Amino acid sequence: MNYDVVGLGVCTMDLLMVVDELPGGELVQRAHDSALAGGGPVATALVTLARLGARTAMLDLVGGDLIGRMIVAELDAAGVDTSAMAIDAGSTSSQAAVLVRKRDGARAITFAPGTSGELPPGQLNEEMIRAAKILHLNGRHWQACLRAAQIAREAGVVVSFDGGSHRYRAEHLELLPLVDVCIVAEEYAASCTGASAPERGAEALLRYGPKVVAVTSGTRGSHVVSADGESFHQPACPVDRVVDTTGAGDAYHGGFLFGLARGLSLKESARYASAVGALNTRALGGRAALPALSQLDEFLDHRG
Amino acid sequence: MNYDVVGLGVCTMDLLMVVDELPGGELVQRAHDSALAGGGPVATALVTLARLGARTAMLDLVGGDLIGRMIVAELDAAGVDTSAMAIDAGSTSSQAAVLVRKRDGARAITFAPGTSGELPPGQLNEEMIRAAKILHLNGRHWQACLRAAQIAREAGVVVSFDGGSHRYRAEHLELLPLVDVCIVAEEYAASCTGASAPERGAEALLRYGPKVVAVTSGTRGSHVVSADGESFHQPACPVDRVVDTTGAGDAYHGGFLFGLARGLSLKESARYASAVGALNTRALGGRAALPALSQLDEFLDHRG
Repeated sequence: MNYDVVGLGVCTMDLLMVVDELPGGELVQRAHDSALAGGGPVATALVTLARLGARTAMLDLVGGDLIGRMIVAELDAAGVDTSAMAIDAGSTSSQAAVLVRKRDGARAITFAPGTSGELPPGQLNEEMIRAAKILHLNGRHWQACLRAAQIAREAGVVVSFDGGSHRYRAEHLELLPLVDVCIVAEEYAASCTGASAPERGAEALLRYGPKVVAVTSGTRGSHVVSADGESFHQPACPVDRVVDTTGAGDAYHGGFLFGLARGLSLKESARYASAVGALNTRALGGRAALPALSQLDEFLDHRG
Repeated sequence: MNYDVVGLGVCTMDLLMVVDELPGGELVQRAHDSALAGGGPVATALVTLARLGARTAMLDLVGGDLIGRMIVAELDAAGVDTSAMAIDAGSTSSQAAVLVRKRDGARAITFAPGTSGELPPGQLNEEMIRAAKILHLNGRHWQACLRAAQIAREAGVVVSFDGGSHRYRAEHLELLPLVDVCIVAEEYAASCTGASAPERGAEALLRYGPKVVAVTSGTRGSHVVSADGESFHQPACPVDRVVDTTGAGDAYHGGFLFGLARGLSLKESARYASAVGALNTRALGGRAALPALSQLDEFLDHRG
């Protein structure tokens, strides 16, 4: 079996609740809406890809607790291959409580990392990585992440990196030369390169080795540059009513990689990314409003 | 099969997180500890009883979602009979996010009731109710609750009622004459009877029909009175280190009913109740620190 995208990262289970107030003190309040949903940047990007019709597989180490079993079951149900997920029977899995304030979407996130720890590099399914078009990473399971990127690089598999807002660490400088597609939040670009303007951050990141860099700025869109000299701004897609921005960035990654895996141009891939990210804000939870390909194409046709 | 206690109420699944601050605004914070745990006053009382060795069964209507399946699986694992639980495939189950502030145990509870609604009285397993020594209710599934109490009363089954702090409703005056054992929080007693002192509230509640009334006041203990003229104060048991008071009151109910089902005196039952409630505060989650009977007896022997 070949895969469009194999991902390595940390899966979580999130309990999301839409509330009137983020509680500053003791209180009992009724939520307007709630959802228990799988999360984690790489996993949500894979679910985005699977929903669009791509073949994906997830690599992670989860606990053998109820949360871990739910994480695997939800990925299975989404069509993501979980046959190479490692399970540590005696440990707990990552979980988060996300309170979303109804009036403005402000979020208070409390997370508990679980005790399952890092995936040992020796437990990586190397065959699966070599059988992929793209390997998607975000720096979690650090030693396994480096090893996976090396395996992919040697096998000619495209290496994709997701740099989240507060996720920059100096050790990433060791990974970036192995990365082909580097899509990071503007805070990440600023921390990594020292350039505060996203377009400058994108140009600076290119010099670390990636062939394609995108720097995302939420509703202000994204700046995309390539080693081939392409450079453009991709506007964010407006949506009528934003319910919850959880997972919007992860879905952007999924949409972008879907375009690249299908052999589309950078501009077309960025347009897909932007549309998928926007569509994913229409429902509570990081994965509830991900579009099928037909819905994505319809949305883009409608927008012209 | 005969049951010591059959319960009718609403089961929930709670995500508990121990945090430094209850979030008054947007933030991302790491929890010191977390637990996903079943909740709901009646269900936790039954789990308390099952842990002590009693035969119990739960009646509720849950959704067919992941949460609903987890609720049933967790009760099964605790040894509570779930064979008469009703499941509505197309609806969602009750869930709550509970943030517990580490320094003082203050709790911010956000709950989402689910869409499964009330259990129709026609779906009650009447045979199961008639096969019980005690029927335990808290007023949820109101029409089914009234019907269950009538069935129990006709069959000579003891009817037990849990009145939670903010749960008093005027319609409960229709239920109280059918209740034999009425154990309520002091706020409930005050709302129902107008008597602000717990001992006066207990006496006033006796006049509605119950044979035994206890009014609980947290760490200030409980006042127990009976139609036979017993009246005493049961002190709360001190514990060295309170981690989380979630479920302490529910466990008090379980301990009290365990004593009554075993034919113990009111004083012995109240002592069990107080000890079980206290022991249950030693771990995060409403059910994680419930004692087995041997542990309970050892704790009480040690205290003398």
